[in-house]
Amino acid sequence: MAEPTGLIAKSGIELLTFGTPNGFKVSILLEELKEAYGRDYTWQSINIMKNTQKEPWFTALCPNGRIPAIVDHDNNGFAVFEGLAILGYLTRRYDPEHRFSFPVDSDDYTVCEEWMAWQHGGLGPMQGQANHFHRFAKERIAYPTQRYVGESERLYGILDARLAERDFVAGPGRGKFSIADMSLLGWVNIATFSGLDMGMFPHVQKWLDRCMERPGVRKGFAVPNVSGLSNEKIAEVIESDPEQKKKTEEARKFLEEAKEKYGYKYLSP
Amino acid sequence: MAEPTGLIAKSGIELLTFGTPNGFKVSILLEELKEAYGRDYTWQSINIMKNTQKEPWFTALCPNGRIPAIVDHDNNGFAVFEGLAILGYLTRRYDPEHRFSFPVDSDDYTVCEEWMAWQHGGLGPMQGQANHFHRFAKERIAYPTQRYVGESERLYGILDARLAERDFVAGPGRGKFSIADMSLLGWVNIATFSGLDMGMFPHVQKWLDRCMERPGVRKGFAVPNVSGLSNEKIAEVIESDPEQKKKTEEARKFLEEAKEKYGYKYLSP
Repeated sequence: MAEPTGLIAKSGIELLTFGTPNGFKVSILLEELKEAYGRDYTWQSINIMKNTQKEPWFTALCPNGRIPAIVDHDNNGFAVFEGLAILGYLTRRYDPEHRFSFPVDSDDYTVCEEWMAWQHGGLGPMQGQANHFHRFAKERIAYPTQRYVGESERLYGILDARLAERDFVAGPGRGKFSIADMSLLGWVNIATFSGLDMGMFPHVQKWLDRCMERPGVRKGFAVPNVSGLSNEKIAEVIESDPEQKKKTEEARKFLEEAKEKYGYKYLSP
Repeated sequence: MAEPTGLIAKSGIELLTFGTPNGFKVSILLEELKEAYGRDYTWQSINIMKNTQKEPWFTALCPNGRIPAIVDHDNNGFAVFEGLAILGYLTRRYDPEHRFSFPVDSDDYTVCEEWMAWQHGGLGPMQGQANHFHRFAKERIAYPTQRYVGESERLYGILDARLAERDFVAGPGRGKFSIADMSLLGWVNIATFSGLDMGMFPHVQKWLDRCMERPGVRKGFAVPNVSGLSNEKIAEVIESDPEQKKKTEEARKFLEEAKEKYGYKYLSP
Protein backbone atom coordinates (compact mmCIF):
# COMPACT_ATOMS: atom_id res chain seq x y z
CA MET A 1 0.00 0.00 0.00
CA ALA A 2 1.31 3.44 -0.91
CA GLU A 3 2.20 5.67 2.01
CA PRO A 4 0.33 8.94 2.64
CA THR A 5 1.90 12.01 1.04
CA GLY A 6 -0.21 14.72 2.63
CA LEU A 7 -3.54 15.52 4.26
CA ILE A 8 -6.73 14.16 2.69
CA ALA A 9 -9.67 15.58 4.64
CA LYS A 10 -11.32 18.98 4.20
CA SER A 11 -13.30 19.12 7.43
CA GLY A 12 -13.33 17.59 10.88
CA ILE A 13 -10.39 15.94 12.61
CA GLU A 14 -7.75 14.13 10.60
CA LEU A 15 -5.67 11.67 12.60
CA LEU A 16 -2.20 10.59 11.50
CA THR A 17 -1.46 7.42 13.43
CA PHE A 18 -0.07 3.89 13.54
CA GLY A 19 -0.96 0.76 15.52
CA THR A 20 1.09 1.61 18.61
CA PRO A 21 0.11 2.31 22.23
CA ASN A 22 0.41 6.06 21.69
CA GLY A 23 -1.56 5.94 18.46
CA PHE A 24 -4.45 4.02 20.04
CA LYS A 25 -4.93 6.69 22.72
CA VAL A 26 -6.22 9.08 20.12
CA SER A 27 -8.22 6.65 17.96
CA ILE A 28 -9.97 5.44 21.11
CA LEU A 29 -10.94 9.01 22.05
CA LEU A 30 -12.10 9.78 18.51
CA GLU A 31 -14.24 6.62 18.44
CA GLU A 32 -15.70 7.50 21.84
CA LEU A 33 -16.48 11.05 20.66
CA LYS A 34 -18.14 9.52 17.59
CA GLU A 35 -20.28 7.23 19.76
CA ALA A 36 -21.18 10.07 22.13
CA TYR A 37 -21.68 13.00 19.77
CA GLY A 38 -21.93 11.42 16.30
CA ARG A 39 -18.79 13.27 15.26
CA ASP A 40 -16.95 11.50 12.44
CA TYR A 41 -13.20 11.75 11.72
CA THR A 42 -10.64 10.77 9.09
CA TRP A 43 -7.49 8.78 9.74
CA GLN A 44 -4.39 7.86 7.79
CA SER A 45 -1.93 5.13 8.68
CA ILE A 46 1.65 6.39 8.85
CA ASN A 47 4.04 3.47 8.53
CA ILE A 48 6.79 4.26 11.02
CA MET A 49 8.90 1.39 9.67
CA LYS A 50 9.06 3.33 6.40
CA ASN A 51 9.81 6.63 8.22
CA THR A 52 6.83 8.39 6.68
CA GLN A 53 6.69 10.43 9.91
CA LYS A 54 10.03 11.98 8.93
CA GLU A 55 8.75 13.30 5.57
CA PRO A 56 8.67 17.11 5.28
CA TRP A 57 4.85 17.29 4.94
CA PHE A 58 4.55 15.38 8.23
CA THR A 59 7.19 17.27 10.19
CA ALA A 60 5.58 20.54 9.07
CA LEU A 61 2.61 19.37 11.19
CA CYS A 62 4.60 17.59 13.89
CA PRO A 63 8.19 18.85 14.14
CA ASN A 64 9.12 15.94 16.40
CA GLY A 65 8.51 13.44 13.58
CA ARG A 66 6.46 11.00 15.66
CA ILE A 67 2.91 9.70 15.59
CA PRO A 68 0.21 10.47 16.65
CA ALA A 69 -0.64 13.92 15.32
CA ILE A 70 -3.98 15.48 14.45
CA VAL A 71 -5.12 18.30 12.20
CA ASP A 72 -8.37 20.09 12.97
CA HIS A 73 -9.77 21.18 9.62
CA ASP A 74 -12.59 22.94 11.45
CA ASN A 75 -10.04 25.14 13.23
CA ASN A 76 -8.01 26.55 10.34
CA GLY A 77 -5.96 23.38 9.99
CA PHE A 78 -4.60 23.67 13.54
CA ALA A 79 -2.18 20.76 14.11
CA VAL A 80 -1.47 19.15 17.48
CA PHE A 81 1.17 16.58 18.40
CA GLU A 82 1.98 14.64 21.63
CA GLY A 83 -0.73 12.30 22.89
CA LEU A 84 -1.36 14.19 26.12
CA ALA A 85 -1.90 17.49 24.30
CA ILE A 86 -4.11 15.88 21.64
CA LEU A 87 -6.38 14.29 24.27
CA GLY A 88 -6.50 17.61 26.11
CA TYR A 89 -7.30 19.66 23.02
CA LEU A 90 -9.96 17.30 21.69
CA THR A 91 -11.85 17.07 24.96
CA ARG A 92 -11.64 20.80 25.76
CA ARG A 93 -13.06 21.54 22.33
CA TYR A 94 -15.28 18.60 21.41
CA ASP A 95 -16.45 17.10 24.70
CA PRO A 96 -18.74 19.89 25.95
CA GLU A 97 -20.71 17.48 28.18
CA HIS A 98 -17.51 16.21 29.84
CA ARG A 99 -18.30 12.60 29.08
CA PHE A 100 -14.57 11.72 28.97
CA SER A 101 -13.04 14.72 30.70
CA PHE A 102 -13.62 17.28 33.44
CA PRO A 103 -14.35 21.03 33.52
CA VAL A 104 -11.06 22.94 33.24
CA ASP A 105 -11.65 24.87 36.46
CA SER A 106 -12.25 21.73 38.54
CA ASP A 107 -9.71 19.86 40.64
CA ASP A 108 -10.77 16.71 38.78
CA TYR A 109 -9.30 18.25 35.63
CA THR A 110 -5.94 18.48 37.38
CA VAL A 111 -6.19 14.95 38.78
CA CYS A 112 -6.90 13.67 35.27
CA GLU A 113 -4.00 15.74 33.92
CA GLU A 114 -1.58 14.41 36.56
CA TRP A 115 -2.35 10.77 35.77
CA MET A 116 -2.05 11.49 32.05
CA ALA A 117 1.30 13.14 32.76
CA TRP A 118 2.29 10.15 34.87
CA GLN A 119 1.56 7.90 31.89
CA HIS A 120 3.13 10.28 29.37
CA GLY A 121 6.39 10.81 31.25
CA GLY A 122 6.66 7.53 33.16
CA LEU A 123 4.77 4.41 32.18
CA GLY A 124 4.88 5.13 28.44
CA PRO A 125 8.58 5.93 28.02
CA MET A 126 9.73 3.29 30.50
CA GLN A 127 7.57 0.48 29.08
CA GLY A 128 8.74 1.60 25.64
CA GLN A 129 12.33 1.04 26.76
CA ALA A 130 11.34 -2.33 28.25
CA ASN A 131 9.94 -3.31 24.84
CA HIS A 132 13.15 -2.25 23.20
CA PHE A 133 15.53 -4.21 25.42
CA HIS A 134 13.27 -7.17 26.16
CA ARG A 135 12.06 -7.63 22.60
CA PHE A 136 13.40 -5.43 19.82
CA ALA A 137 17.11 -4.80 20.39
CA LYS A 138 19.42 -6.98 18.31
CA GLU A 139 21.73 -7.45 21.25
CA ARG A 140 20.46 -8.80 24.58
CA ILE A 141 21.91 -6.70 27.42
CA ALA A 142 21.12 -7.67 30.99
CA TYR A 143 21.38 -4.37 32.85
CA PRO A 144 18.98 -2.19 30.82
CA THR A 145 16.57 -5.10 30.35
CA GLN A 146 16.01 -5.54 34.08
CA ARG A 147 16.17 -1.77 34.63
CA TYR A 148 13.24 -0.98 32.32
CA VAL A 149 11.08 -4.03 32.93
CA GLY A 150 11.66 -3.43 36.64
CA GLU A 151 10.70 0.25 36.47
CA SER A 152 7.60 -0.69 34.45
CA GLU A 153 6.66 -3.17 37.18
CA ARG A 154 7.03 -0.45 39.80
CA LEU A 155 4.75 1.79 37.78
CA TYR A 156 2.15 -0.96 37.29
CA GLY A 157 2.24 -1.40 41.05
CA ILE A 158 1.32 2.28 41.45
CA LEU A 159 -1.55 1.88 38.99
CA ASP A 160 -2.73 -1.29 40.71
CA ALA A 161 -2.88 0.53 44.04
CA ARG A 162 -4.72 3.43 42.40
CA LEU A 163 -7.34 1.06 40.97
CA ALA A 164 -7.75 -1.05 44.12
CA GLU A 165 -10.82 0.89 45.17
CA ARG A 166 -11.77 2.58 41.91
CA ASP A 167 -13.19 1.60 38.56
CA PHE A 168 -11.33 4.29 36.62
CA VAL A 169 -8.16 6.32 37.10
CA ALA A 170 -9.64 9.83 37.48
CA GLY A 171 -12.89 11.32 38.68
CA PRO A 172 -14.71 11.46 42.01
CA GLY A 173 -15.79 8.35 43.92
CA ARG A 174 -14.98 5.20 41.96
CA GLY A 175 -14.03 7.37 38.98
CA LYS A 176 -15.27 7.98 35.46
CA PHE A 177 -13.93 6.55 32.20
CA SER A 178 -11.83 9.41 30.86
CA ILE A 179 -8.81 10.39 28.79
CA ALA A 180 -6.63 9.33 31.74
CA ASP A 181 -7.72 5.73 31.16
CA MET A 182 -7.42 6.10 27.37
CA SER A 183 -3.83 7.27 27.67
CA LEU A 184 -2.92 4.07 29.54
CA LEU A 185 -4.94 1.46 27.66
CA GLY A 186 -2.60 0.91 24.71
CA TRP A 187 0.33 0.27 27.01
CA VAL A 188 -1.44 -2.03 29.45
CA ASN A 189 -2.84 -3.97 26.50
CA ILE A 190 0.73 -5.07 25.57
CA ALA A 191 2.11 -5.55 29.09
CA THR A 192 2.86 -9.25 28.49
CA PHE A 193 4.90 -8.40 25.41
CA SER A 194 6.90 -5.94 27.54
CA GLY A 195 7.88 -8.69 29.97
CA LEU A 196 5.32 -7.95 32.67
CA ASP A 197 3.18 -10.53 34.44
CA MET A 198 -0.39 -9.21 34.55
CA GLY A 199 -1.12 -11.72 37.31
CA MET A 200 0.83 -9.40 39.64
CA PHE A 201 -1.61 -6.55 38.97
CA PRO A 202 -5.15 -7.90 39.41
CA HIS A 203 -6.81 -4.48 39.74
CA VAL A 204 -5.16 -3.31 36.52
CA GLN A 205 -6.37 -6.47 34.77
CA LYS A 206 -9.96 -5.93 35.95
CA TRP A 207 -9.79 -2.29 34.83
CA LEU A 208 -8.50 -3.35 31.39
CA ASP A 209 -11.37 -5.84 31.05
CA ARG A 210 -13.83 -3.14 32.14
CA CYS A 211 -12.54 -0.67 29.56
CA MET A 212 -12.50 -3.32 26.84
CA GLU A 213 -16.25 -3.78 27.24
CA ARG A 214 -16.74 -0.36 25.65
CA PRO A 215 -17.46 -0.44 21.90
CA GLY A 216 -15.52 2.81 21.43
CA VAL A 217 -12.43 1.29 23.00
CA ARG A 218 -12.62 -1.83 20.83
CA LYS A 219 -13.16 0.25 17.69
CA GLY A 220 -10.30 2.58 18.59
CA PHE A 221 -8.01 -0.41 19.01
CA ALA A 222 -8.74 -1.37 15.38
CA VAL A 223 -7.43 1.95 13.91
CA PRO A 224 -5.43 1.58 11.76
CA ASN A 225 -5.34 -2.14 12.63
CA VAL A 226 -5.55 -4.50 15.59
CA SER A 227 -2.17 -4.93 17.30
CA GLY A 228 -0.50 -8.31 17.06
CA LEU A 229 1.21 -7.62 20.36
CA SER A 230 -1.82 -7.50 22.67
CA ASN A 231 -1.81 -9.65 25.79
CA GLU A 232 -4.49 -11.87 24.25
CA LYS A 233 -2.73 -12.25 20.92
CA ILE A 234 0.60 -13.02 22.55
CA ALA A 235 -1.04 -15.73 24.67
CA GLU A 236 -2.64 -17.23 21.54
CA VAL A 237 0.56 -17.11 19.50
CA ILE A 238 2.55 -18.76 22.28
CA GLU A 239 0.00 -21.58 22.32
CA SER A 240 -0.10 -22.06 18.56
CA ASP A 241 3.43 -21.32 17.37
CA PRO A 242 6.29 -23.39 18.87
CA GLU A 243 8.91 -21.01 17.39
CA GLN A 244 7.30 -18.00 19.08
CA LYS A 245 6.88 -19.97 22.29
CA LYS A 246 10.59 -20.75 22.30
CA LYS A 247 11.55 -17.11 21.60
CA THR A 248 9.26 -15.84 24.35
CA GLU A 249 10.63 -18.36 26.83
CA GLU A 250 14.20 -17.38 25.98
CA ALA A 251 13.44 -13.70 26.47
CA ARG A 252 11.72 -14.48 29.77
CA LYS A 253 14.65 -16.58 30.98
CA PHE A 254 17.12 -13.83 30.05
CA LEU A 255 15.00 -11.31 31.96
CA GLU A 256 14.85 -13.50 35.06
CA GLU A 257 18.60 -14.01 35.02
CA ALA A 258 19.19 -10.30 34.46
CA LYS A 259 16.98 -9.48 37.46
CA GLU A 260 18.89 -11.96 39.59
CA LYS A 261 22.28 -10.72 38.42
CA TYR A 262 21.51 -7.16 39.50
CA GLY A 263 19.64 -8.09 42.67
CA TYR A 264 16.34 -6.69 41.38
CA LYS A 265 13.46 -6.83 43.82
CA TYR A 266 9.92 -5.74 43.04
CA LEU A 267 9.12 -2.69 45.11
CA SER A 268 6.37 -0.14 44.70
CA PRO A 269 6.42 2.85 44.91
CA MET B 1 20.06 18.03 58.46
CA ALA B 2 17.00 16.09 59.51
CA GLU B 3 14.68 15.08 56.69
CA PRO B 4 11.10 16.41 56.54
CA THR B 5 8.49 14.23 58.20
CA GLY B 6 5.35 15.98 57.04
CA LEU B 7 3.86 19.24 55.82
CA ILE B 8 4.83 22.46 57.56
CA ALA B 9 2.75 25.29 56.04
CA LYS B 10 -0.79 26.30 56.91
CA SER B 11 -1.57 28.46 53.90
CA GLY B 12 -0.40 29.05 50.35
CA ILE B 13 1.53 26.58 48.22
CA GLU B 14 3.93 24.12 49.83
CA LEU B 15 6.49 22.67 47.43
CA LEU B 16 8.23 19.35 48.10
CA THR B 17 11.28 19.31 45.88
CA PHE B 18 14.95 18.56 45.35
CA GLY B 19 17.70 20.13 43.21
CA THR B 20 16.89 18.22 40.02
CA PRO B 21 15.69 19.36 36.57
CA ASN B 22 12.11 18.38 37.38
CA GLY B 23 12.23 20.07 40.76
CA PHE B 24 13.49 23.37 39.32
CA LYS B 25 10.53 23.62 36.93
CA VAL B 26 8.24 24.27 39.82
CA SER B 27 10.51 26.45 41.96
CA ILE B 28 11.11 28.65 38.90
CA LEU B 29 7.36 29.08 38.36
CA LEU B 30 6.75 29.78 42.04
CA GLU B 31 9.52 32.42 42.06
CA GLU B 32 8.08 33.99 38.90
CA LEU B 33 4.59 34.04 40.43
CA LYS B 34 6.11 35.68 43.52
CA GLU B 35 7.81 38.36 41.37
CA ALA B 36 4.65 38.95 39.33
CA TYR B 37 1.92 38.75 41.97
CA GLY B 38 3.75 38.98 45.30
CA ARG B 39 2.55 35.50 46.18
CA ASP B 40 4.86 33.76 48.67
CA TYR B 41 5.28 29.99 49.05
CA THR B 42 6.92 27.41 51.32
CA TRP B 43 9.32 24.72 50.22
CA GLN B 44 10.89 21.66 51.78
CA SER B 45 13.90 19.78 50.44
CA ILE B 46 13.23 16.06 50.03
CA ASN B 47 16.50 14.18 49.87
CA ILE B 48 15.93 11.54 47.20
CA MET B 49 19.22 9.86 48.11
CA LYS B 50 17.66 9.09 51.50
CA ASN B 51 14.36 7.95 49.88
CA THR B 52 12.31 10.46 51.84
CA GLN B 53 9.96 10.51 48.83
CA LYS B 54 9.07 6.89 49.60
CA GLU B 55 7.92 7.66 53.16
CA PRO B 56 4.19 7.08 53.76
CA TRP B 57 3.43 10.74 54.48
CA PHE B 58 4.93 11.65 51.10
CA THR B 59 3.30 8.88 49.05
CA ALA B 60 -0.06 9.83 50.59
CA LEU B 61 0.40 13.11 48.67
CA CYS B 62 2.21 11.68 45.65
CA PRO B 63 1.53 7.95 45.17
CA ASN B 64 4.33 7.72 42.60
CA GLY B 65 6.96 8.51 45.25
CA ARG B 66 8.83 11.10 43.20
CA ILE B 67 9.53 14.80 43.49
CA PRO B 68 8.24 17.42 42.76
CA ALA B 69 4.84 17.56 44.44
CA ILE B 70 2.84 20.50 45.75
CA VAL B 71 0.12 20.96 48.32
CA ASP B 72 -2.24 23.92 48.01
CA HIS B 73 -3.21 24.83 51.56
CA ASP B 74 -5.58 27.46 50.14
CA ASN B 75 -7.51 24.74 48.31
CA ASN B 76 -8.28 22.26 51.10
CA GLY B 77 -4.79 20.77 50.98
CA PHE B 78 -5.19 19.66 47.37
CA ALA B 79 -2.00 17.83 46.34
CA VAL B 80 -0.64 17.66 42.80
CA PHE B 81 2.23 15.59 41.43
CA GLU B 82 3.96 15.37 38.00
CA GLY B 83 5.70 18.54 36.81
CA LEU B 84 3.43 19.11 33.82
CA ALA B 85 0.27 18.93 35.93
CA ILE B 86 1.74 21.14 38.66
CA LEU B 87 2.70 23.86 36.15
CA GLY B 88 -0.77 23.58 34.60
CA TYR B 89 -2.61 23.76 37.91
CA LEU B 90 -0.59 26.67 39.30
CA THR B 91 -1.00 28.82 36.21
CA ARG B 92 -4.70 28.06 35.70
CA ARG B 93 -5.32 29.04 39.29
CA TYR B 94 -2.71 31.63 40.19
CA ASP B 95 -1.74 33.32 36.91
CA PRO B 96 -4.97 35.19 36.10
CA GLU B 97 -3.14 37.71 33.89
CA HIS B 98 -1.51 34.92 31.84
CA ARG B 99 1.97 36.25 32.39
CA PHE B 100 3.43 32.73 32.07
CA SER B 101 0.58 30.85 30.43
CA PHE B 102 -2.31 31.21 27.99
CA PRO B 103 -6.10 31.30 28.28
CA VAL B 104 -7.42 27.72 28.39
CA ASP B 105 -9.73 28.23 25.42
CA SER B 106 -6.93 29.53 23.14
CA ASP B 107 -4.88 27.51 20.66
CA ASP B 108 -1.78 28.94 22.36
CA TYR B 109 -2.76 26.99 25.48
CA THR B 110 -2.61 23.78 23.44
CA VAL B 111 0.69 24.75 21.78
CA CYS B 112 2.17 25.37 25.22
CA GLU B 113 0.73 22.06 26.45
CA GLU B 114 2.17 20.13 23.49
CA TRP B 115 5.70 21.44 24.07
CA MET B 116 5.40 20.73 27.78
CA ALA B 117 4.25 17.20 26.89
CA TRP B 118 7.16 16.91 24.45
CA GLN B 119 9.52 17.76 27.31
CA HIS B 120 7.68 15.63 29.86
CA GLY B 121 7.51 12.48 27.72
CA GLY B 122 10.61 12.93 25.52
CA LEU B 123 13.45 15.23 26.42
CA GLY B 124 13.10 14.69 30.19
CA PRO B 125 12.96 10.90 30.32
CA MET B 126 15.51 10.41 27.53
CA GLN B 127 18.06 12.89 28.92
CA GLY B 128 17.47 11.27 32.29
CA GLN B 129 18.50 7.93 30.82
CA ALA B 130 21.50 9.60 29.15
CA ASN B 131 22.55 10.86 32.59
CA HIS B 132 22.19 7.39 33.99
CA PHE B 133 24.29 5.57 31.41
CA HIS B 134 26.76 8.34 30.66
CA ARG B 135 27.37 9.33 34.27
CA PHE B 136 25.68 7.43 37.07
CA ALA B 137 25.60 3.71 36.20
CA LYS B 138 28.31 1.63 37.87
CA GLU B 139 28.88 -0.32 34.70
CA ARG B 140 29.68 1.43 31.39
CA ILE B 141 27.58 -0.11 28.61
CA ALA B 142 28.06 1.12 25.07
CA TYR B 143 24.69 0.46 23.46
CA PRO B 144 22.34 2.27 25.88
CA THR B 145 24.88 5.09 26.34
CA GLN B 146 24.84 6.04 22.66
CA ARG B 147 21.12 5.28 22.40
CA TYR B 148 20.09 7.83 25.04
CA VAL B 149 22.68 10.51 24.40
CA GLY B 150 21.83 10.14 20.70
CA GLU B 151 18.08 10.45 21.27
CA SER B 152 18.70 13.49 23.48
CA GLU B 153 20.71 15.06 20.66
CA ARG B 154 17.85 14.45 18.25
CA LEU B 155 15.46 16.15 20.66
CA TYR B 156 17.80 19.12 21.18
CA GLY B 157 17.89 19.42 17.39
CA ILE B 158 14.08 19.74 17.38
CA LEU B 159 14.25 22.42 20.07
CA ASP B 160 17.02 24.25 18.22
CA ALA B 161 14.87 24.37 15.06
CA ARG B 162 11.89 25.54 17.11
CA LEU B 163 13.94 28.41 18.59
CA ALA B 164 15.64 29.43 15.33
CA GLU B 165 13.12 32.20 14.76
CA ARG B 166 11.63 32.57 18.20
CA ASP B 167 12.68 33.88 21.59
CA PHE B 168 10.54 31.43 23.56
CA VAL B 169 9.01 28.02 22.94
CA ALA B 170 5.28 28.90 22.98
CA GLY B 171 3.15 31.94 22.23
CA PRO B 172 2.41 33.97 19.11
CA GLY B 173 5.11 35.71 17.07
CA ARG B 174 8.53 35.29 18.67
CA GLY B 175 6.84 33.75 21.70
CA LYS B 176 6.37 34.58 25.37
CA PHE B 177 8.32 33.24 28.36
CA SER B 178 5.97 30.58 29.73
CA ILE B 179 5.68 27.29 31.58
CA ALA B 180 6.81 25.56 28.34
CA ASP B 181 10.23 27.20 28.75
CA MET B 182 10.27 26.54 32.49
CA SER B 183 9.67 22.83 31.95
CA LEU B 184 12.78 22.63 29.76
CA LEU B 185 15.20 24.90 31.60
CA GLY B 186 16.41 22.48 34.25
CA TRP B 187 17.29 19.88 31.64
CA VAL B 188 19.02 22.20 29.21
CA ASN B 189 20.97 23.66 32.11
CA ILE B 190 22.72 20.28 32.60
CA ALA B 191 23.10 19.27 28.93
CA THR B 192 26.91 19.12 29.17
CA PHE B 193 26.69 16.73 32.10
CA SER B 194 24.40 14.50 29.99
CA GLY B 195 27.04 14.20 27.25
CA LEU B 196 25.62 16.82 24.87
CA ASP B 197 27.64 19.50 23.12
CA MET B 198 25.77 22.79 23.46
CA GLY B 199 27.84 24.17 20.58
CA MET B 200 25.65 22.05 18.28
CA PHE B 201 22.53 23.91 19.41
CA PRO B 202 23.22 27.65 19.20
CA HIS B 203 19.58 28.72 19.32
CA VAL B 204 19.01 26.65 22.43
CA GLN B 205 22.09 28.21 24.04
CA LYS B 206 20.85 31.74 23.27
CA TRP B 207 17.41 30.87 24.65
CA LEU B 208 18.99 29.50 27.85
CA ASP B 209 21.02 32.72 28.27
CA ARG B 210 17.86 34.78 27.63
CA CYS B 211 15.87 32.88 30.26
CA MET B 212 18.76 33.07 32.75
CA GLU B 213 18.55 36.87 32.69
CA ARG B 214 15.26 36.63 34.56
CA PRO B 215 15.60 37.05 38.35
CA GLY B 216 12.76 34.56 38.89
CA VAL B 217 14.61 31.91 36.93
CA ARG B 218 17.85 32.44 38.85
CA LYS B 219 16.02 32.37 42.18
CA GLY B 220 14.10 29.25 41.19
CA PHE B 221 17.36 27.53 40.33
CA ALA B 222 18.53 28.11 43.91
CA VAL B 223 15.64 26.15 45.52
CA PRO B 224 16.53 24.07 47.44
CA ASN B 225 20.12 24.68 46.27
CA VAL B 226 22.12 25.53 43.16
CA SER B 227 22.92 22.45 41.10
CA GLY B 228 26.54 21.36 40.92
CA LEU B 229 25.81 19.81 37.52
CA SER B 230 24.99 22.96 35.53
CA ASN B 231 26.81 23.55 32.25
CA GLU B 232 28.70 26.44 33.85
CA LYS B 233 29.66 24.49 36.97
CA ILE B 234 30.81 21.49 34.97
CA ALA B 235 33.00 23.73 32.79
CA GLU B 236 34.52 25.30 35.94
CA VAL B 237 35.11 21.98 37.66
CA ILE B 238 36.79 20.51 34.58
CA GLU B 239 39.16 23.50 34.57
CA SER B 240 39.97 23.37 38.25
CA ASP B 241 39.91 19.68 39.16
CA PRO B 242 42.24 17.33 37.25
CA GLU B 243 40.47 14.26 38.65
CA GLN B 244 37.09 15.48 37.34
CA LYS B 245 38.66 16.46 34.06
CA LYS B 246 39.99 12.94 33.63
CA LYS B 247 36.65 11.36 34.54
CA THR B 248 34.79 13.60 32.11
CA GLU B 249 37.24 12.88 29.32
CA GLU B 250 36.95 9.14 29.92
CA ALA B 251 33.16 9.30 29.79
CA ARG B 252 33.33 11.41 26.63
CA LYS B 253 35.73 8.97 24.98
CA PHE B 254 33.55 6.01 25.89
CA LEU B 255 30.54 7.81 24.39
CA GLU B 256 32.38 8.59 21.13
CA GLU B 257 33.48 4.99 20.79
CA ALA B 258 29.99 3.73 21.59
CA LYS B 259 28.54 6.00 18.89
CA GLU B 260 31.06 4.72 16.39
CA LYS B 261 30.51 1.09 17.33
CA TYR B 262 26.78 1.34 16.63
CA GLY B 263 27.10 3.58 13.57
CA TYR B 264 25.32 6.48 15.27
CA LYS B 265 24.77 9.55 13.12
CA TYR B 266 23.21 12.78 14.33
CA LEU B 267 19.86 13.21 12.61
CA SER B 268 16.96 15.45 13.48
CA PRO B 269 14.01 14.93 13.50
